[in-house]
Amino acid sequence: MALVVQKYGGTSVGTTDRIKNVAKRIIKTYEAGNEVVVVVSAMSGETNKLVALANDMVDIPDNREYDVVVATGEQVTIGLLSMYLKSLGYKAKSYMGWQVPIITDSTFSKARIESIDDTRMRADLKAGNIVVVAGFQGMDKDGNLTTLGRGGSDTSAVALAAALKADVCEIYTDVDGVYTTDPNVCKEARKVEKVSYDEMLELASLGAKVLQIRSVEFAKKFNVDIHVRSSLNENTGTMVTREDKDMEGILVSGVAYDKNEAKIAVLGVPDKPGIAAQILTPLSDAAISVDMIVQNVSHDGLTDFTFTVTKADLKKALLITNEAAKEIQAQEVQSDENISKISIVGLGMRSHAGVATRMFSVLAKNNINIGMISTSEIKVSVVIDEKYTELAVRVLHEEFGLQG
Amino acid sequence: MALVVQKYGGTSVGTTDRIKNVAKRIIKTYEAGNEVVVVVSAMSGETNKLVALANDMVDIPDNREYDVVVATGEQVTIGLLSMYLKSLGYKAKSYMGWQVPIITDSTFSKARIESIDDTRMRADLKAGNIVVVAGFQGMDKDGNLTTLGRGGSDTSAVALAAALKADVCEIYTDVDGVYTTDPNVCKEARKVEKVSYDEMLELASLGAKVLQIRSVEFAKKFNVDIHVRSSLNENTGTMVTREDKDMEGILVSGVAYDKNEAKIAVLGVPDKPGIAAQILTPLSDAAISVDMIVQNVSHDGLTDFTFTVTKADLKKALLITNEAAKEIQAQEVQSDENISKISIVGLGMRSHAGVATRMFSVLAKNNINIGMISTSEIKVSVVIDEKYTELAVRVLHEEFGLQG
Repeated sequence: MALVVQKYGGTSVGTTDRIKNVAKRIIKTYEAGNEVVVVVSAMSGETNKLVALANDMVDIPDNREYDVVVATGEQVTIGLLSMYLKSLGYKAKSYMGWQVPIITDSTFSKARIESIDDTRMRADLKAGNIVVVAGFQGMDKDGNLTTLGRGGSDTSAVALAAALKADVCEIYTDVDGVYTTDPNVCKEARKVEKVSYDEMLELASLGAKVLQIRSVEFAKKFNVDIHVRSSLNENTGTMVTREDKDMEGILVSGVAYDKNEAKIAVLGVPDKPGIAAQILTPLSDAAISVDMIVQNVSHDGLTDFTFTVTKADLKKALLITNEAAKEIQAQEVQSDENISKISIVGLGMRSHAGVATRMFSVLAKNNINIGMISTSEIKVSVVIDEKYTELAVRVLHEEFGLQG
Repeated sequence: MALVVQKYGGTSVGTTDRIKNVAKRIIKTYEAGNEVVVVVSAMSGETNKLVALANDMVDIPDNREYDVVVATGEQVTIGLLSMYLKSLGYKAKSYMGWQVPIITDSTFSKARIESIDDTRMRADLKAGNIVVVAGFQGMDKDGNLTTLGRGGSDTSAVALAAALKADVCEIYTDVDGVYTTDPNVCKEARKVEKVSYDEMLELASLGAKVLQIRSVEFAKKFNVDIHVRSSLNENTGTMVTREDKDMEGILVSGVAYDKNEAKIAVLGVPDKPGIAAQILTPLSDAAISVDMIVQNVSHDGLTDFTFTVTKADLKKALLITNEAAKEIQAQEVQSDENISKISIVGLGMRSHAGVATRMFSVLAKNNINIGMISTSEIKVSVVIDEKYTELAVRVLHEEFGLQG
C-alpha cells in the first residue's frame, strides 16, 4: 500500500464532466489499495473570472482581499469532486487550506508554506477517506486566508506529499510530461524520461509551464519524486527526481521561453554605490519578484539599470520604480512589454565550456539581437524581441541536438 | 457613537457597480461617527449558479460538500467590497464565518448559530476598521464549514448584532419595508411602520420574503431592533421590534402567500398510534422541515396523512416518505407541487373570535377551495390551488381593510 498525492490542474477539472473523469482515475488508484490525497485547482477560466471581478472593483486590489476572492475557485472544485466521490459510495472529505491547516507566511497573493499539520488528514486517510485538498491556498498564523500565487496548486501538492511522506506526487496536466521544448513551437520537441530537480528548477523558472518553480524547490528540499503526466491518457510521463550520472552527460536538456516578462529600464542613473538596492528594495517590499538584472558600465558618471518583472506586476512595479527613480535623480524610466526570454538548460554545462558562445553565435547567424544576458551554473538566458521567440527556440533546439 | 450592523442582500451587491454604491452608504454611516459591521450576501445569481454546478455533479449533493461549494458566493462579495473600501482610503477587513468565528451546529445546509466570538471584530472596530462579514456561513465545532440555509445572511446579521449588542440592525433589501401584502399581487398594499417580532415571525414563515424566519427568532430572543429598508433610497422602512399596545388593536396586519411548498399525502394508512412519528421522524432526521400537517378521521381503520415541505426538499422527502410508507403498510404516496399557502396574520386575533370564519367565507364566496388548514394564536393559513393565489390575496386584503 502506497500513499499517493495526485494533483489535477484547471484544465483537468474544467467542467463537471471532466471532474467526473478525474474521479474515475482517483478511484482506480484508491481501489488498487493506495491511500490517496488529491489536490485540485480551480476549474479552468474561473480564476481569470475572479481576477477580472477584482480588477473591475479597483485598479490595484489589496492583496489580502484579493486572496479572499480568488481562493474561492479551488473551494468550488473540492466540494464538487468530493460530493461526486461520495455519490459513488466512496468516503471522501474536502479540505480548504485553513482546515488542513497549511500554514504560510503573510505575504498575501504570494505566500510561502511554512508548515503543514497532517494530523487530521492522517486520521481521515486511516478511516478510509479519499482526502481532497484545495490547492493554491493556506492560512497565516493570524488566521488570514492566503494564496500561493499563480500555479500554486503544484506547490500545495508537493508540500503535502512532503508532509505526508508520500511515495509519489503525481502532477496531472494537459501535456504528457516535460519536453525538450514547447511542442507547439517546435515539432521536433521530445518527451524527457527523467530530469533533475535543478534542471526542472531552471526550466520552471524560465517559463516552462509544466510545474511551478516553488513546487520544484520544495521537491528538491524534501526529496519528493514528482511524476508529471497527462490526465488524458495512461502514458508514463516525466519523473522529476534526484540527479544521477546519466543526466550529467547531457549538455543541454531543454530550451525554454517566457513571454510573460516585461522590461523596466531606469536611464541616466548617477553612478553611486547603493543604487541597485535603492531601486530594488521597494519592489521586494511590495513582494514583486525581479528576474533578470543588468547594469551597464557608466558614461560621464551616469549608468542605466535594467531589470525584468512579470507582465502582471508591471503596472505596480512601474509606479514604485518611478518613485525610486525620482529619489535617486535618474533621468527617465522606460518599459517594454514586447520582450521574450529564451533559455537553454543542462547539467552538462557545469563541466563543458563554450555552450553560451554557441548559443549567441546561432542567434547572431539568424539575425536575432540580444538585449540582456543572464547565466547560472546550468543555464543561459537571453532577452530578445518577442517576435523572434519561435525562431530562436527552433534554431537552438536544432543546434544542441535535442530532436533526438 | 452607535454600533450599526448593516446587511445587504444579493440584489444590492449584484454587480461591481452596485457594490460600489453599497460602499458609499457604508462610508456615510461610518463618517457619521458610527462603528459599522457589514454583512453581505452572494452577488445575485451566484448562489443559483453554484447550486446548478452541484446539481450537475450529483442528483442529491452531500450536504457538507454542498456547503463548501455554495459558501464561496459570499466570500467573493466580502473580498470585493473590502478591497473597494480600502482603495478609497478606509480601513476595512473581511471575515469569513470561520474567521469570526460564528460557531454553528453540524446540520450542514441548515445549520443553527450556537455562539459568536466577538473578540477579533471588536479589536478591529476599535482600530477604526469597517468589518465586512460573509453572511450565510459559519463553522461547526469540528472545523467544518456550514451554511445557514437560503436567506441565512439575515440571520447572520441579526446574530452579529446580538453578539455585539449593536444599536440597530439595518437589513437592506430591494423593497421599502414590510407591506400588508405583496405589492406585485395587490396594488393596494401599504408599507407598515412597525411590526412585532411575532407578526413578522408568522409573515416570514409564511413566505413574506423580506426577512428569513430564523433572523426574526434571533431578534426576538435577543431583543434586536431590525430596520428593514431599501438600498435604493433613503426612505425610512419598517421597524421590527417589541410588541406594544398600538399593535394589539389591529385584527389582521398582513396577508402572505407562499408558492414554495409542495404537498405529500400518504393515503390508506392503518390507523394505529405512532403513525405520525413513524412518517415524520426520518424526515426530521434528514433535516427536512415539515410545515403544515393534517390527518383526517379514519374510515375502516384507514386514514390519510398529509403534510407540506419546501419544493426544494420534495425530491428527498418523497424518497424518505416512500420508505416509511412501505414500513407502515400505507396504500399510496401522492405529491402535488401546484399548491399555494395563503395566510392572514395579526396580533388582534388573540382577542377577537371569528377571524378564521371570515377568511373561509370570503374564499368560498370566490369559489376558492380550501385543501388544508392550519392555525396559530395570531395567524390562519390555508392551502389552495396555486392558480388562485393572487385572487385569494386580493380578496383577503380587501376583506380585512388593509388598503388603509
